[in-house]
Formats: sequence, structure tokens, C-alpha cells
Amino acid sequence: MKPEHKAEMKARARNIVLTVAYDGTAYHGFQRQTPPVVAVQNVLEEKLQLVFGDTIELAASGRTDAGVHAYGQVVNFFTNGTIPTERIVRAVNSLLPPDIVVKEAHEADFEFSARHSAKSKTYIYRIQQGETGSPFTQRYAWYERRPLDVVSMQQALDCIVGTHDFSAFRAAGGAPMLPIRTMYEAKVEEKGNDMLEFSIHGNGFLYHMVRNIIGTVVNVGLGRLTVAEFQRIMESLDRKQASATAPACGLYLYKVEY
Amino acid sequence: MKPEHKAEMKARARNIVLTVAYDGTAYHGFQRQTPPVVAVQNVLEEKLQLVFGDTIELAASGRTDAGVHAYGQVVNFFTNGTIPTERIVRAVNSLLPPDIVVKEAHEADFEFSARHSAKSKTYIYRIQQGETGSPFTQRYAWYERRPLDVVSMQQALDCIVGTHDFSAFRAAGGAPMLPIRTMYEAKVEEKGNDMLEFSIHGNGFLYHMVRNIIGTVVNVGLGRLTVAEFQRIMESLDRKQASATAPACGLYLYKVEY
Repeated sequence: MKPEHKAEMKARARNIVLTVAYDGTAYHGFQRQTPPVVAVQNVLEEKLQLVFGDTIELAASGRTDAGVHAYGQVVNFFTNGTIPTERIVRAVNSLLPPDIVVKEAHEADFEFSARHSAKSKTYIYRIQQGETGSPFTQRYAWYERRPLDVVSMQQALDCIVGTHDFSAFRAAGGAPMLPIRTMYEAKVEEKGNDMLEFSIHGNGFLYHMVRNIIGTVVNVGLGRLTVAEFQRIMESLDRKQASATAPACGLYLYKVEY
Repeated sequence: MKPEHKAEMKARARNIVLTVAYDGTAYHGFQRQTPPVVAVQNVLEEKLQLVFGDTIELAASGRTDAGVHAYGQVVNFFTNGTIPTERIVRAVNSLLPPDIVVKEAHEADFEFSARHSAKSKTYIYRIQQGETGSPFTQRYAWYERRPLDVVSMQQALDCIVGTHDFSAFRAAGGAPMLPIRTMYEAKVEEKGNDMLEFSIHGNGFLYHMVRNIIGTVVNVGLGRLTVAEFQRIMESLDRKQASATAPACGLYLYKVEY
């Protein structure tokens, strides 16, 4: 957004914050795309414009890639629309397709930014185990038939907790940005029905970082890498040492903390 | 199948039985359709022919409608194919799209028929409650925002247990068949995350019977019908007394007992 445009937006009467859940399967990621390519943001802005009666440009806590899901993406936008805050959720959901759902809406002060005010985020990653896959989780989890060792994967995840340079897990060719991030928690749990759930909570994430960590942790779970090798990969700061990026369908932006 | 055709099929060397799970969203029901309309059976037969090397005509425990799912549909077919039984599951699944999964395969004696040998079936029906829907259950549950009373719905379900004439819950215009069925169990449970799960186990089901029962039970849960009125609707034997058919997306053929 250009500075004068931003000033114009901020001259509007209200700063509305939404928490949005979506099934990312059908979308080319969160960030607005040029039609006919459709991102979650295109659909959301189009429906919000109908409800609020003015042009909407929303800012999100961050992008999610094509096929990645969200339980709790947070967005905000400035508007002169007069719909009472308590009616926003139902009004917007009545227009949205069923794979995008506004879970909560509130009005914030003008300094709040879904992107810049975010203090930490939690991502979830799901892996379906079992001799056969499940038709009901194929859009929502990575299927890996070979049994994964939860104990050694948890030991690998323990290595990422704390403040580290995560260059080894950043996307090759990503935009240059400081690669130091702090992970507060990283765990893997068995959830029943052969489902494994990974959860990583940190103050920020590099592009593809969660999927690159999971891809490498899975090789620990398969016995192809030791925990010590995982640690050395992280310390190498070299993306080429780490494993392939895990598929998008298992990843969820779970929560953004402000 | 014509009798002489059936005799020819039975002259084949093996009678193979598969348990199949599928997400019915993308299919025009289970039963084979004329292309370009695609049913689960079309896809399954096409891939089985590749694995077994002869023409496959399978028989199923019963049809499921467009959009209805299955955890445990059972099918059988006669074949001269020589693939070892223990390799069938992986071979077929490697060819199937991810929304159809063969869960189990075994060889049966020649008298076994997935259709005619079935003694009972269990269907599950899921309803998503909550102030907003979930993008992750939109394909897999009926969404009803208004709270449903579980106690009165269970009382209504208690009315269907036993041997009854279920004419009030059969599809209007369905094929004429005796409308007496025995229900062994019918229950509703809260499953967490605002999900309700109905489960009905009976010796047979009329066309649309489960969805018509659920549509009427939900009106009990909403307080629009009393349990006594539900009972009178069932005893009226009149489809026009019962409520609208519940949507296909919430229904699952869970298990077939032999």
C-alpha cells in the first residue's frame, strides 16, 4: 500500500479485525492474486465489500501458501461501513463459500495491525499414518504409510526450541531477511485414528520453514537421520542439507497471538 | 447381471471381497453410471481391471447416493486374476484416486455375496453445530447453527428401535418393497468440537430412510416436534408427515455385518 493510500484508509472510521478459518485446497494461497487465479484474500475482500459497502483492502498476519489451511488467520481492514460489529460474522459467512469461515470479528484501535502487531504464531502439521490412507483426511494431512518414531521426532523438535538461525530450513531463493527466530514450543502427539499432530509455536517463521522442518523431522522418524544429524543440519545453515519440503495439505496456521 | 452372465462369472477361479472407504463428494453415488457421469463403482472397476487383468463386475452391499460417504462399503467380484490376496490392497490403492481407499481384501467361498449375504448395516450421520461452521467439516457433516437438544433427539431415536413399518421414512416414489425393518440400535452422541454423531444399526434400510429419519429427528431437536409427534409420524406410515430429507454430505455407510 502506498503511504498516501494508507493515510486515506486510516482516515476511515473503523478498524475491523477478523479471525478467519479456511480450507486452502481450492485456493492459490492466502495473498490476493490476479484473476482468474483465486486466493482466499480475493474472495474475502469481494464479500467484505458487499457487507461494508466500500472498497476493502485487508492486511493479514502473514501469507499462507497454496493448499495450506488456517484455523485462525487474522486480518484487519479500515472501513466506513456501518454494520454493527456483532452482525459481521453472520453477514459475511452468509456470502462466503463454505471453505472460508469468519470465526470472530471485533473493532480495534487504529494502531492495531494484523501483520505488524503479531507477537507469535502457532502452526499445526498433520500426518496420517496407517496401512492405508483415509479418504477423509487426504485434503487435510500428509499420508505416510511407513511408521514414524514419535520419540526420536520429539527429540529432533527439541533441538529447534530456543533462538536459532533457521537458514537451513528457509526456502531456497526466498526474500532476504534475518534468519534468526525463537521457537517457544515444538511437539508431536498421537491423536488417535493413526493421526500424528505436530505443533510449533514461535515468534516468527521464514518462508517454508515449518514444512522444511517437518520434512526433515520425518526422516528422523523413519530412521534415515539421527537426532544428532538433524542438529547438525540445523547448525549447517545450509538449505541443501535439509530434506524436501513437506506437502502443503498437512499445514495449518492455527493461531496468531497479539 | 443376466443369469448366463452370472454363471460365466462364477466359473472364474476366485471370489474376492473388498472393504472400501470413500469420500462421496465428487461422485454420482456408488452405483455404476454411464460416462461422463462418474460413480465410485466406475472408478473402482476400472482400476481393479488393471490389477486383475480381466473384466470386473462388482456387486456391493448396497448403493449409496451422490455425496454419501463410506467407511466400510463391502464389494465382491469373481476373477481369474492371479495377484496374491495380500498384495491386492496396496496394488489397487496405488492406482485409485485419494478419495477412494481399499481398506481390506480377502478371498471368500463362491456362495458369498456382498449384497445378499449382508445381515445388518450401520450408518453414521454427522451434524456440525456451533455459531459458525467449519471449513474442514463442510464436506463431511450437515451444518446446523441452532442448538439441537440431544436428550429429546435420543428419545425420538428410541422410538425407531425394534421392528417397524418404516413407510413414513421411505423416499417418495421409491421402488416398491416391503417396508418392515428391524433397528437394533439408534443413538446420538456429542463428539467434541460441536459435532453430533448419530449411529443407526439395522437389518436393512429403505431408500433415503436414514436421511429422512435424521431430518425428522432434527426437528425434534429444534423443538418443532415433540417426541410423541415423532412417534405419530412414524406410525402414520405417510412420507408426507415426515420432515425433509437431511443432506447427503452428513451420511456414512459405516459397517456391513455378514
